[in-house]
Amino acid sequence: MKQTLTQKILERHLVSGSCVPGREISIRIDQTLTQDATGTMAYLQFESMDIPRVKTELSVSYIDHNTVQIGYENADDHRYLQSVAEKFGLYFSRPGNGICHQVHLERFGKPGKTLIGSDSHTPTGGALGMIAIGAGGLDVALAMAGEPFYLTCPRVIKINLLGQLQPWVSAKDIILKVLDLFGTKGNVGCVFEYGGPGVDTLTVPERATIANMGAECGVTTSIFPSDERTRRFLKAQHREEDWSELKADLEADYDRIVDIDLSKLTPLTAMPHSPGNVAPIRECEPVAIRQVCLGSCTNSSYKDLATVAKILKGRVTHPDVSFIIAPGSKQVLENLARDGYLADLFASGARLMENACGFCIGNSQSPQSGSASLRTSNRNFFGRSGTRDAQVYLASPESAAAAVITGHLTDPRDLGIPYPEVSLPEEFYVDDRTIIKPKEADSAATVAIYRGPNIGPPPTNELLPDSLDGIVTLKVGDHITTDHIMPAGERMKYRSNIPKYAEYLFEILDSTFFQRAIKIKESGSSNIIVAGSSYGQGSSREHAAICPMYVGVKAILAKSFERIHAANLINFGILPLTFVREEDYDHLAQGDRLLFPDIRNSLLDRDRLQIRNCTQELTMEVAFELSSRQKKILLAGGALHRS
Amino acid sequence: MKQTLTQKILERHLVSGSCVPGREISIRIDQTLTQDATGTMAYLQFESMDIPRVKTELSVSYIDHNTVQIGYENADDHRYLQSVAEKFGLYFSRPGNGICHQVHLERFGKPGKTLIGSDSHTPTGGALGMIAIGAGGLDVALAMAGEPFYLTCPRVIKINLLGQLQPWVSAKDIILKVLDLFGTKGNVGCVFEYGGPGVDTLTVPERATIANMGAECGVTTSIFPSDERTRRFLKAQHREEDWSELKADLEADYDRIVDIDLSKLTPLTAMPHSPGNVAPIRECEPVAIRQVCLGSCTNSSYKDLATVAKILKGRVTHPDVSFIIAPGSKQVLENLARDGYLADLFASGARLMENACGFCIGNSQSPQSGSASLRTSNRNFFGRSGTRDAQVYLASPESAAAAVITGHLTDPRDLGIPYPEVSLPEEFYVDDRTIIKPKEADSAATVAIYRGPNIGPPPTNELLPDSLDGIVTLKVGDHITTDHIMPAGERMKYRSNIPKYAEYLFEILDSTFFQRAIKIKESGSSNIIVAGSSYGQGSSREHAAICPMYVGVKAILAKSFERIHAANLINFGILPLTFVREEDYDHLAQGDRLLFPDIRNSLLDRDRLQIRNCTQELTMEVAFELSSRQKKILLAGGALHRS
Repeated sequence: MKQTLTQKILERHLVSGSCVPGREISIRIDQTLTQDATGTMAYLQFESMDIPRVKTELSVSYIDHNTVQIGYENADDHRYLQSVAEKFGLYFSRPGNGICHQVHLERFGKPGKTLIGSDSHTPTGGALGMIAIGAGGLDVALAMAGEPFYLTCPRVIKINLLGQLQPWVSAKDIILKVLDLFGTKGNVGCVFEYGGPGVDTLTVPERATIANMGAECGVTTSIFPSDERTRRFLKAQHREEDWSELKADLEADYDRIVDIDLSKLTPLTAMPHSPGNVAPIRECEPVAIRQVCLGSCTNSSYKDLATVAKILKGRVTHPDVSFIIAPGSKQVLENLARDGYLADLFASGARLMENACGFCIGNSQSPQSGSASLRTSNRNFFGRSGTRDAQVYLASPESAAAAVITGHLTDPRDLGIPYPEVSLPEEFYVDDRTIIKPKEADSAATVAIYRGPNIGPPPTNELLPDSLDGIVTLKVGDHITTDHIMPAGERMKYRSNIPKYAEYLFEILDSTFFQRAIKIKESGSSNIIVAGSSYGQGSSREHAAICPMYVGVKAILAKSFERIHAANLINFGILPLTFVREEDYDHLAQGDRLLFPDIRNSLLDRDRLQIRNCTQELTMEVAFELSSRQKKILLAGGALHRS
Repeated sequence: MKQTLTQKILERHLVSGSCVPGREISIRIDQTLTQDATGTMAYLQFESMDIPRVKTELSVSYIDHNTVQIGYENADDHRYLQSVAEKFGLYFSRPGNGICHQVHLERFGKPGKTLIGSDSHTPTGGALGMIAIGAGGLDVALAMAGEPFYLTCPRVIKINLLGQLQPWVSAKDIILKVLDLFGTKGNVGCVFEYGGPGVDTLTVPERATIANMGAECGVTTSIFPSDERTRRFLKAQHREEDWSELKADLEADYDRIVDIDLSKLTPLTAMPHSPGNVAPIRECEPVAIRQVCLGSCTNSSYKDLATVAKILKGRVTHPDVSFIIAPGSKQVLENLARDGYLADLFASGARLMENACGFCIGNSQSPQSGSASLRTSNRNFFGRSGTRDAQVYLASPESAAAAVITGHLTDPRDLGIPYPEVSLPEEFYVDDRTIIKPKEADSAATVAIYRGPNIGPPPTNELLPDSLDGIVTLKVGDHITTDHIMPAGERMKYRSNIPKYAEYLFEILDSTFFQRAIKIKESGSSNIIVAGSSYGQGSSREHAAICPMYVGVKAILAKSFERIHAANLINFGILPLTFVREEDYDHLAQGDRLLFPDIRNSLLDRDRLQIRNCTQELTMEVAFELSSRQKKILLAGGALHRS
């Protein structure tokens, strides 16, 4: 049978199940990555498994989220992670070394390998021809322990790239076009596999922008073939030996094929407040831009920043614009500095931030109130910037540079200047001295784990009770992201301290949620959340499951769930239930008392459950969209309780 | 009469009084500077004076403190400050352009001029032969309104520099030696005037390090002659025309002359928790250093960073050290980038922060709990780093580089490598495009001031009552800094919002202070603070007076006050009272009720007052160390009420 590239890699790693789309399979994981905001909890869970050393080919612990370090908590977490890496045989990428996805691409990713990472943008690795998937921290911990990773065998959609990009149009515009075509929901359980002659025209960092932001469509991952471009990129990284050619069979069997003619694309933007709210810049209403942020894991490569440096050379930032750069990695920075681009960026008025996630996660550079900020990052969710009434637009580095000059949303073709071509260096300056290598097993065993006052044990859950009696503590709408559930930004430093972090649950939607939930829990009842479609979009943070678990949330009733979040809920023993009839959503209100009778037996035997709304005197049916493995986890109260 | 350089400049600017040490004089102010953390309040006060345009030769509004921008407040403040500068004829140094003192030195300071700035490190300008003094924001506002600046005519102490520094010993070691000799108290009302043959051996940036940190001794300012070195520095800044020669007369009449033989100095450090706690590094106990921070307004010049780059070239940051750099200015960064030093710093593992105050004010890069951090900044007060139990050591860039390599407190001479000589460029790359020039008066008048939701009007006080009846809300010890009174760090974003900021009064010492004070105020009584010596050390922030005023503090009883803080208290109508007998401090306790009878008349007629401790049934005498001008301000309830 003619195979897609996705099928080839999955089959090569298959542990259980068979590769039929929609069926649960499990695969062997070659590589894992974590970042600090999700990593502390992942390693606390790994520690509780009592395994002396990671069992993957390669596991890397990155520090890139909480690098502003206000208060001791972040530095303590960094030290904890460093000591864990030393003890359990991981690579440790020091703070300042860069954003996990960019660094992993540069130094560790390999065609044909499987990678899971506790960050939703892990699919960036698909640029190198890997199956790279975002997952909850507990799934990463299990993979490090040698367990397979469970997923729904995906449907594979081919995105067939034709032609070549015009000047001033770049990779970000391609993925914005994909978002325009596919939207941010309805793509769960799919993989975007890129192919066609247009692929040859794209460098690996450009492919990375596209694979990275496929996450916004909700797909399992995105993947590119490993070809001559891939070989050249790896050679420039001094690791040509990691290259191998990989591609789909001719006439492979795709679920669907969608053509995109690159030569027809124009500069696009995702308008507030969704990455899927895409429009051509020339068709947008005039918008004054007060802040431009270049960088984040989507567009922080050498080429992205060098292109902007060339556009801005001899020009200066508009007086009303604050121009922020967060480069992707130390390697990017060093190469930009050696090639003179960095000095040019300074001259034009750029404010250089540390090479880390920075503005993208709202832990710095919040824009002026009520103003518009144009960013090259991947998410413009409401409130994520740290300024509730800010309007965030997403666009390419070229469009960012145009706004830096003009002070308003501008199609860069309208600058009326020649498009600067930037080619990648034949060889990058490569220096891995700030990535600490794993210790030999003998000496690693004696390493003591550092635990500062910010590090607590992961909270645990109890067995699922025979029946549930709960209150609808909160009813929310569609597209609730993990940012809505557990805010990032300045709250993120409590990621290793669940009782504290839980205080901010749903803060952005309802600041009284935590108090209400605790009261309901203390009264012996359970908390139930009611939600619309695509509940749990966005970041992979499992805290959006752990903190609800901590305050006694036992079930979420939603029209639909995002993949990673549903897996996290299951891992922490919270029932993800979908309405059999979506209109039942309308028959639930905050404060309603719900009864879930005989839920343990129902879970074991059936796929549906009748629940009773005592307040409104109604009955409705909810579905378990769960594998038998997932049901077992839920019965046990979470994956940490499975023996 | 033979004059000191200080006397020459003061006399040339004298408006009232006569230059007799200890007498109050007033002087004309040529230049002012503000930074954003103190500036918003200064400009709100300036606005309330209803003057169309600043009356100084030059006024500059810098953004350098709140540049992390967590939440909308900081960006709103920046925009407010930009619109104020545009309207009232100031230069505006955009966020990212650098630290006020470094940029002012590079682009605006002029020998022989007077400068006041709403930042305690304004004396940095003394490196160029200016009289540069830190002041409260209201004093700066008054100077911009064309009012003279009042100060006690200083005693002038000559610091006579002999010989030449040995390799690995640098300007920071000189000022640490000065701190060792003079301590952090007892120097109020003095000026350090540097002279002697050793001065010739020091470049302007080196002199700036020394003048900057004189603030830690509590002197009014420090000053260097303007000589050939000054000319060369200004020429490298493309403004040789701003140079003039200035020096003390031979055999000028100094209050005291202290010799320092530069050739005998060795690498020093200020140990926790005071800049005056100085010891030779070789004599210190071994200390593991977990963080090294290079930069801040004390040591963030081209030469400082280039020296460290050269020391670290080919070497890498110790695995246990987090190595942070906060460069002084965009000019420093651009020149380091063009000369290749920046790439070398990246290669060695430096984490580059924005060129701003950063770690020094505790709004980022808080160290690991319980760990030691070595910093090139000027203050190591308890808690200032943002980590309460951190141990902060101050030292030179050379000693910082040594700790980066070894991971412990290290005399850099013990590295066993040759000392890298760095000479200043003949000409710096100079680019002022990110400093926005004042508008012409006509077009400026029409500018609308931007006011975001974080900007409120400055609170006002009432007349001083005939007598005071108050409660000792808090009793504190010696060396209470403005950091103790009003925390900086993450709280600083409320600087334009007094009711909110006041909630954090004395937070670091007693988190219940605010609630107690408000209760006492609401009961119709007054709040009284009792303090030891040197109350109000450190930063010039007038919020340490405004917020107490806001919660109803009417008097501070202390053994002694620092100069800037005493002036701020007076400006906001709070009585700074000193014990006639220091031992009376021991006869006061928190909660004591104090009566200050007939205080208005006493202020007018006398220099002392009998106060009654009703709780302990004692009487004690306190002194007014106040000029008649200051008494008038206090009677009016603050300087904004003087007509």
